[in-house]
This record gives sequence, C-alpha cells and structure tokens, in this order.
Amino acid sequence: MKKLINAVEDVVKEQLEGMATAHPDMLKVHFEPNYVTRADAPVQGKVALISGGGSGHEPMHGGFVGKGMLDAACPGEVFTSPTPDQMYEAAKAVDGGAGVLFLVKNYTGDVLNFETAAELAYGDGIKVQSILIDDDAAVKDSLYTAGRRGVGTTVLAEKIVGAAAEAGYDLEQCADLARKVNQNGRSIGIALTSCTVPAAGKPTFDLGEDEYEFGIGIHGEPGRERLPMASADEIGEKMALAILDDGPYTRTVREWDNESGDWVEKELTDPPFKSGDQVIAFVNSMGGTPVSELYAIYRKLAEICENKGVTIARNLIGPYITSLEMQGCSITLLKADDEILKFWDAPVVTPGLRWGA
Amino acid sequence: MKKLINAVEDVVKEQLEGMATAHPDMLKVHFEPNYVTRADAPVQGKVALISGGGSGHEPMHGGFVGKGMLDAACPGEVFTSPTPDQMYEAAKAVDGGAGVLFLVKNYTGDVLNFETAAELAYGDGIKVQSILIDDDAAVKDSLYTAGRRGVGTTVLAEKIVGAAAEAGYDLEQCADLARKVNQNGRSIGIALTSCTVPAAGKPTFDLGEDEYEFGIGIHGEPGRERLPMASADEIGEKMALAILDDGPYTRTVREWDNESGDWVEKELTDPPFKSGDQVIAFVNSMGGTPVSELYAIYRKLAEICENKGVTIARNLIGPYITSLEMQGCSITLLKADDEILKFWDAPVVTPGLRWGA
Repeated sequence: MKKLINAVEDVVKEQLEGMATAHPDMLKVHFEPNYVTRADAPVQGKVALISGGGSGHEPMHGGFVGKGMLDAACPGEVFTSPTPDQMYEAAKAVDGGAGVLFLVKNYTGDVLNFETAAELAYGDGIKVQSILIDDDAAVKDSLYTAGRRGVGTTVLAEKIVGAAAEAGYDLEQCADLARKVNQNGRSIGIALTSCTVPAAGKPTFDLGEDEYEFGIGIHGEPGRERLPMASADEIGEKMALAILDDGPYTRTVREWDNESGDWVEKELTDPPFKSGDQVIAFVNSMGGTPVSELYAIYRKLAEICENKGVTIARNLIGPYITSLEMQGCSITLLKADDEILKFWDAPVVTPGLRWGA
Repeated sequence: MKKLINAVEDVVKEQLEGMATAHPDMLKVHFEPNYVTRADAPVQGKVALISGGGSGHEPMHGGFVGKGMLDAACPGEVFTSPTPDQMYEAAKAVDGGAGVLFLVKNYTGDVLNFETAAELAYGDGIKVQSILIDDDAAVKDSLYTAGRRGVGTTVLAEKIVGAAAEAGYDLEQCADLARKVNQNGRSIGIALTSCTVPAAGKPTFDLGEDEYEFGIGIHGEPGRERLPMASADEIGEKMALAILDDGPYTRTVREWDNESGDWVEKELTDPPFKSGDQVIAFVNSMGGTPVSELYAIYRKLAEICENKGVTIARNLIGPYITSLEMQGCSITLLKADDEILKFWDAPVVTPGLRWGA
C-alpha cells in the first residue's frame, strides 16, 4: 500500500486538519466527535442541511460544506458509518431554529446511526427531517444495504437542497425537494481497479488486467457482473442504458414525523426516464481515473441520451464522490424540472464545488 | 493497460469531442489542426492568452479555456508537443487586435514549435509575446528540457494573467505579469506510481511497492532521486523544503520583440523565498491521488511555511496539472503581491477552474 498518509489510525483526523487549515473562510472542523460545520454556523432562521457517512469519498461530504450546500458533514472512519453522537452534536451546532434535514445514503449503518441522532435531536427540541438517498440502479440488496445503495445523486441533492435552504425553503419544503431529487436520480458505477482501505493495507478485491466490474458500489462492494475489459464507448453505452432502461423502483422508506415524534413508513415509486425528459448528467471519477477519460464517457453518454430523446440540460464532470484511489467512474442522471435547475444554478461556495459567487 | 478509451489513436480527438459536447457555453473545439477557443472568441480589444502542450495533463490546458483565463489551448498528442500550425491557427482565431501572449512550458519541443508559431503570427501582423514557464525546482536540464521544466506555476500564470487580460492590461503588461509570476513560482513533484501512455500500452517506468520518485516531472521523466516510501509528513516536509530552501535561479530566456521582429535574449534571476513572504500554495494531484491525501500534504506544508515565516494567503488543492493516472502530487508556491492576489481572486469561468461568477 502506497498512500500519502501517516499512521493509519490518524488518516481521517489529519485530512480534516488539512481541510480546517486550508479553508477557514468556508468551514470549521470539530474533533471528538468529528464533524465539519459552515464557518458561519448556525445561520439563524435557515434550515440546516446535514449529511455524512464513511470517509474515503472526498470531496463528499466535508468538501461540500459551505454557503449554498451543506451546513454540516459527519465523517466516519474510512468506509465506516459515523456514530450517532457526530450527527447529534452537528445538529445542535448548526440548527438555526428552522430545523435540520439529514440526507442519508442508504447503507445499513448510516441509516441506523442517523435515526438515533434524529431521535436525540428531536428530544432536544430540534425539528428534524431525514431523507434517504437510494439511487444506485446496479443492485437491489447488496453487501451493506437493504434496497438500493446511495451514491451519486447524493452530491446533486446536497447542492440543490442546499440552495433551496439558502433561498428560504422551510423544513418540509426542503424534505419534499430532497425526496423528489432522490426519486428522479439514478446512478451506475464501474471499476477498473480496486481501492485499498488504509486499515486493511491491501486491495479490497482482485480484478484482472483484462476485466472490469460493472455496477460497483463506492466501497468496492461487488457489482452486477464482472466483464471482459471493453472500450470507453462500450462501457459508456452499457452504463447509460442501465440507467435509461431501468424500470420503476418501489420500496418503503422511513421518515421522521415531527407531529407524532416517531417514524412513519412511506411507499415510494421512482419513475423511469422517458423521451422528452431533461436531465442533469453527472460523470464522476472514482478517484484514480483522470478527468480526460471522463470526457470519453461523457461523449458516449451524450450520444445515447440524444438517441433516447433525453436532453442534457446541465452537467458535472470530475471527481466528486470517490472511492479512495479506485480507478473507474460513475454516471448519475437526474430528471430536472425548473425548480431543480434553478437551485442547481444558484451560487455555491464550498471547497469541492463552487460557482456563481 | 486499462483505461476508459477507444482506439489509441483517437484518444485526444474523442476527449476533445467530449469537452466540446459538455461545455459549449464556455468553449469551442476546432479540429485539424486541434485547438480549443473561448466560445466568444475573438474578444475585441483584449489581449488573447494562448497556451498548450502535450495532452495527458487535463484539465490543463483545454479545461482552462474560458472567461478570465485562456483564450485558446493547443493540445498535442499525449505527452507530445503541439505542432506550430495549431498555435498559429489558434492565434489567428483569438486575436482581437490587442495581440496574443503565448505561455510556454519549458520543454524543447514546445519551445521550438511555439517559436515558429510566433514568427508566423507576427508575419500576419499579429502582435506577439511569449513567456517561458520554467518553475520546477527538482532538476536543471532533464530528459526533455534545457533548464528547468515548466509545471504547476503554469496553472497559476494562466489564471492570473488571464484575469489581467480581462481587466484590460495591454500585451506588454500581460507579458511583464506572466514573467513575474513565473519568476516568483517554484514547484516540486513526487510520484508513487508510473502512468501509462496509451500509445505505449505499458507503464513509463517501474517503481517498487516500497519506493517513490522525488522530483518527478509531469511526463514520468526521472526525478532527483528514488527514495524508500515514507509518510505524508516526511514527503510533505521534503517537498516544502525543496522549494523554500531553493536558491536564486539564473538563466537566459528568449522573448519576442515586436519592434525588431526578432527574438531577444534576457538574463533572468528568480529570487528565493524568504521570511515575510506571502504565497499562493497549490497542492496538485498527479491524477491518481485523491484529494483526501492532498489535504494530508497541505497540513504539513502549512506547518513548514509557518515555521519559515511564509504566510499562505490563498490555496488551490486538487487535480489541475496531471500526468494521466499517475499517483503522486506536486506543490507549487508562488510569492504573491497585491497585483497577483487581485487577479487570483478575480472571477474565472472555465470547466476546470471556476469562481466569482
């Protein structure tokens, strides 16, 4: 294992120290428990947006803390869920009286620990909403998940709902928008190489020089299938169709109800894409793939979308939700209406995503 | 070799097609000869900034074309100098009457071909200036270079001089600023792995599991020395000191003279860093190293700068001048006065670098 790290047990702490030193204008890092807040938190009267999850996916989530996006991020150890006290302390630190919205990627540990934190925060009189992100079209029920995994749509949801909160949406409106973004977003990922978790010291899985993994998760979880290595056009087309030809997806989610002070179950069905849709297209590097190769994938994706009558209204191309130094990429398509596009275009100032200001 | 590419001979063309499809609002791609211009080029009355070099360093240079940065970029094949006709055609396409400034990284092929292009453009009545970037503190005279190589300071020069051109600086003022940025910038790079040039199909060099290359170039050229693998703190300190303890650097450069219509030689001496300096600190991924590890390096860099009495006024952290999928990083420090900081902070809207608008 060769990485730019010191002691394995200090990896997350020292990366957070680096972020704190680099970006005091945007964010503030708190230790033990670890969480990152906006430099100007709490913002009075504004809904506070909180996300988190295992580390190793940078810039997500800590790099998306700042004006127009997250109020707080809670980083666990590498590929390990954060603990409830992290989200609970973060919620207390960033609540400006309008409540907090948790954006939770669908992994069993994350879901459980965010649920506990929601209950603790509610017990302190903080209004809470919690929206699950489960956008990965690759597999249903995986190594770490019941249902679909939460992947690339998380980045888009953080940006869009972050802008809505900035614009004065109340807690229910923010939750509704987050749910809509999740339901209209779908992703698929592939890997050319494994990543190496520092604490493990060796690659998570073996992948031959002549094969790639289709439908990979962001932690090196197994994908749909292992395939002979193929061209960018073949891989790009297979990825695009896995999203565009995916059927409706129905499952039951749990959301917090501030009236009853308890969880309620909701059945949700995500619609498939259809001709005439306009989308935000997000082509993401898993960490070790340079942006140049992402453009080869984007080229094919744009062609397939055009053939399917789907218009790419906006795009995002680069490493935003990574899997350490894994080589590979993911595609996320998000069906976008005027509300979503308006908040996508709104200013954002974070270390990882910045425009308009 | 596993990469997201199609036929090896189409790699550059197809990546450019992907960029053209993704960013029609910012740039326009021209083929045969290949060059990328601002979508709104030529901008009448504004000095036009042109750079270029071998492909494989993306987002540099094509990703830095747009308002507030480059007017044109000329991509060669991977790690291969662009030909004179690329820069000549680009110069004609973007000259808005105020002349064109070439920013040329110091590699023998780039220097020769930009010189030919400058002479051709001058012959067509276009005012020309050409500034050499030679900021790599690692080695003097390398595999592809007489003198120091041009690396990370190129990105900073493109941003800063691009903003100055936008603000109305004339050709001589832009050239003076570019020369100042180059003279005040110094870089050092390290590699943990080799990259693989598509046309070669195998890694450029072998590097053992227990060693790294100190002072590497951006094409896998040999560095200063091969060392046993070390911690982020040890590597970060050694890199920081290679820059901060570097002495004055004197060499003779050739610049174009529009009066005589010929090249003139100038002796330049770059000053070393000293206590009391303020700098822009740029920690760059070579492509395969994720941003999380860059923060571990930044953490140490900030500590060393503080110990040396050098104040980091601004920073840039991420993959901006890469070497395909190479794992490793580089540090660039640029001594910054008020003029440099003002243009650093100015708005920029390119695919690879964006803020303030």
